[in-house]
Order: sequence, then structure tokens, then C-alpha cells
Amino acid sequence: MLVAYDGRGFHGWAAQPAAAGLRTVQGELERVLGHLFGTAVEVQCAGRTDAGVHATGQVAHVDVPAWPAEVTVERVDRALPDDVRVLALTPAAPGFDARFSAVWRRYVYRVCDDGRGPDPLVRHLVLPWPRALDLEAMTRAADRLVGEHDFAPFCKKRPFASTVRAIHELRWDRDDNGLAVMTVRADAFCHSMVRSLVGVLLPVGDGRRPVSWPGDVLAGGQKDSAVTTMPAYPLVLAEVGYPPDDQFAARQSQTRNVRTLGS
Amino acid sequence: MLVAYDGRGFHGWAAQPAAAGLRTVQGELERVLGHLFGTAVEVQCAGRTDAGVHATGQVAHVDVPAWPAEVTVERVDRALPDDVRVLALTPAAPGFDARFSAVWRRYVYRVCDDGRGPDPLVRHLVLPWPRALDLEAMTRAADRLVGEHDFAPFCKKRPFASTVRAIHELRWDRDDNGLAVMTVRADAFCHSMVRSLVGVLLPVGDGRRPVSWPGDVLAGGQKDSAVTTMPAYPLVLAEVGYPPDDQFAARQSQTRNVRTLGS
Repeated sequence: MLVAYDGRGFHGWAAQPAAAGLRTVQGELERVLGHLFGTAVEVQCAGRTDAGVHATGQVAHVDVPAWPAEVTVERVDRALPDDVRVLALTPAAPGFDARFSAVWRRYVYRVCDDGRGPDPLVRHLVLPWPRALDLEAMTRAADRLVGEHDFAPFCKKRPFASTVRAIHELRWDRDDNGLAVMTVRADAFCHSMVRSLVGVLLPVGDGRRPVSWPGDVLAGGQKDSAVTTMPAYPLVLAEVGYPPDDQFAARQSQTRNVRTLGS
Repeated sequence: MLVAYDGRGFHGWAAQPAAAGLRTVQGELERVLGHLFGTAVEVQCAGRTDAGVHATGQVAHVDVPAWPAEVTVERVDRALPDDVRVLALTPAAPGFDARFSAVWRRYVYRVCDDGRGPDPLVRHLVLPWPRALDLEAMTRAADRLVGEHDFAPFCKKRPFASTVRAIHELRWDRDDNGLAVMTVRADAFCHSMVRSLVGVLLPVGDGRRPVSWPGDVLAGGQKDSAVTTMPAYPLVLAEVGYPPDDQFAARQSQTRNVRTLGS
């Protein structure tokens, strides 16, 4: 299923213990699907977004013995609150796993650098930045981060978790509204990695750091306190990529081997 | 001053008696400007939007003996809460009045007719509509409403207020996201007029009424209970037009004569 949500109303994707009383995207989907199926289900997603992070292209799956014909996408969507929607719902080919079959995730982060701030109507999607950004310099700095590297300097440390990831694409563009937009696509991301990438590139864009700095931080190999983890609220999970149907199972077992203890 | 706001947090533009405890755009602006000036000011706007209505291009003015140099647009903007912003602030030519000098107002209203509903991230700006809309039929129907007419059938009745208005432009287009967008520009609007225009055109678009119906309702000359006043929340005041600087005073006295008892 293809899922879109406004992250403001959720304490992230991952369901929390009922006792915590925290609203989550997984919790809402499991509540609605469980009700329609008449039995408890578990919903797995491609990218377990943090509190406040939005999605326009999250992918998730449920394993069920058979799909009841009356549980249509329209019915699921109507039963959900208006800040989370199921945009599409299709049977998956054998071996599909929303998380482990995925080959890449694409995130988008928007920044307003006009020195004034964003349109109040989209302020939940845009970080205001007080200085003008040189996007060409930021994209050049980002070039040194593209490829497979140990992104430990940009990740929240977790025991036994590998922080090796492959960034396929990392660039900054200006959109039609004059906003600076970072697009990053990688096989996967460690916790808070996208927000740290924004944090290491903004000081290049506004001239406080040289173009070489982000690459130097990466080469340093460990967390650098000069890198700020930027706020979650403008972050959007935009798209998840999968291999052709006949490679789901192979991709899944490969990814599980590499990342079972990580993310 | 050019003002933008997210209508969700406001009980409309017009300041309410303090005892009512209702937050309004005018109230916020007068609070912040009064504080910066050190004296009470009254802020007048071009279009007194209803509760929930947004603006990206509202225009307002204040009359002050002299403008203190330290009250810059940046300072006013920073002092405001993040759901209302002053985008520009300039001294006005003699005779300028945000309301009475204006020659037209343009409003925009967005509808999602894909049968499913809008992106959760912009749901505060889009009306979901359950049936597909034929925008060409709606624009043809709208053609009969363009020009100067008595729009009483589309206005909330107010004693002594003229309901004669001139619509310069009224059309429906599909935007890049597939949304149906109504653009309407008129010299001025009566209360709830834009929302009634949406309400008379949607049934043409989804085939429940003939293209001739909106024109017939107008010709009927009185309120028709078959016309639904659509919800306020997707409505945006997008732009206000003014004549050249040297015609402000002339336009103002002309408009005051026609509309002093109306809007």
C-alpha cells in the first residue's frame, strides 16, 4: 500500500506501547485494517519516519492469508482520519517485503532562505533560514558524500548497527516558489541521517564553511559536534524504489543479511 | 502592507470585542503594530475575510502621523506569530485606502475531484468532491455570471447593502497536481458570494445541473435554496488590484459613495 500522511499529528511511524497513549501512523493503520479484517494485523513500512516527519510516498505491507474483496482501497481510506491516507492498495508479488525488498528511499527537505520566511500556508513543510544559500556550492559539497560510505559521522549511534549506506543522489535545487529543496536518495538511511546531511550542507550554502567541509566530516569517521541535526518537520519521505517483481525475495534476503541488526 | 495568513487560526479578519476572546488577523496586527508604535493603531484591509479563509495577497493600511524608521517590515514580521506575516510594507501615496481605493479582488478556491481526496499535507486548502468535474462546462456556465449584475441570489442578505457587483473573470482550470481551481476576480464581493459561486458551479461540473442553471439562478433575482454555500476553509484571497497612484483619492470617493452602507 502507498501511504501519505501529515507528520504533525503523529509520534512517528512506529506503533508505541498502548500505555504510552501516543498516536502513530502504524497504530492508525493497524486499528483501521484490524477493524475491517476483524482480526489483528501488523503493518510493516519501508521507512520508519520519526515524529513530525511527513510522507507522500511511504510504502507498507500486511501479511494476510487472503484479502477480503470488500476491503477496498476506498473503504480503508475512508475509515482513516484525514491526516493519513492510503493512496493505493494492491496484492504484492511473492517475496515482497515493504522494508527489506526496497532498493532505495528518496527524501525531500525544503528551506526558505529569502531572509523572511515561508508562506504561512505551507510553514509546516519549510525550514526558515536566515541567510541566502548558494545551492551550487551545496551540491558541489554534496558530491563528496555520494556513493557507499560509512555515514557514522551523520548517524545517531546504535549498538551493533552498521552505518554503511550508499547515497545514489544528493542535490539542491530551487523550486518554482523560490524555495531551496534538498533531494536525497540512498539504499537506506540511518537514524537522523537526512537531517544531519541538511545540517552539514547549510553552513556551506551560507558561506560559513568551505565546500570541502562535509567531505572532511565524512572522512573524519566520527560524530562531529559542529554538525547540527536539523528539525524534523520539513522532512518528507517522497518515494521508495523496488526491484522488478521476480527479484523481491532475493533482494529481501540480501538486505536482511546486511541490516538485520541495523535499519 | 501586503499580508499573508493561514485562516485556520483566526475567527476571520475583523477584530472582535475583546470580551469575545476571539483571535483575528486584524487583532494580531493591531496588537503588534500598537506595541512597536507605542500607541494604538487601526488596521484597515481590502477584503474582510471570514473565519477560516486564508490570504496570500491581502492588502491593509494604517494611518499614522509619521512612520518611525525603526519599525521595519522585518521587525513587524518577526513580532507576528507564524500563521500571519507581513510580506511588504511601504508608505502609500496620498489618498490611498486599502479598502476603498481597491479596484478588484481575486480569490482562488481549490477542489479535489479524483474521488479520493487531497494530499494530507495540503488538506486545509482543498475541498474533496466525490464526483469528477467537467471544468469546461463549469467555465461555460460561469460565463453568464461575468459582468455587472445584481448578485443577490448569491449573497447573504444585509439591510441597505447593494448586491450589485462586477465580475471581471470567473473560470475553472486544472493545476499541475490535478486539482480543479476556481479563479474569480471582481470589483468587490458580497458576504459569502465566492462560496455560493462555487456552490452553483459544482453541480454543473458533475452533471447534476445543466450549464444554463447558474445563469438562471442569477436571472431569478433572489436567493435559491438549491444553491449551497460551500465551506470557507479552501478559500484564499490571492490578490488585490489598485489604480495608478494618482487615482487613489478619486477611486476612494467613488467607491465610498456606492458602497458606504454595503461592503
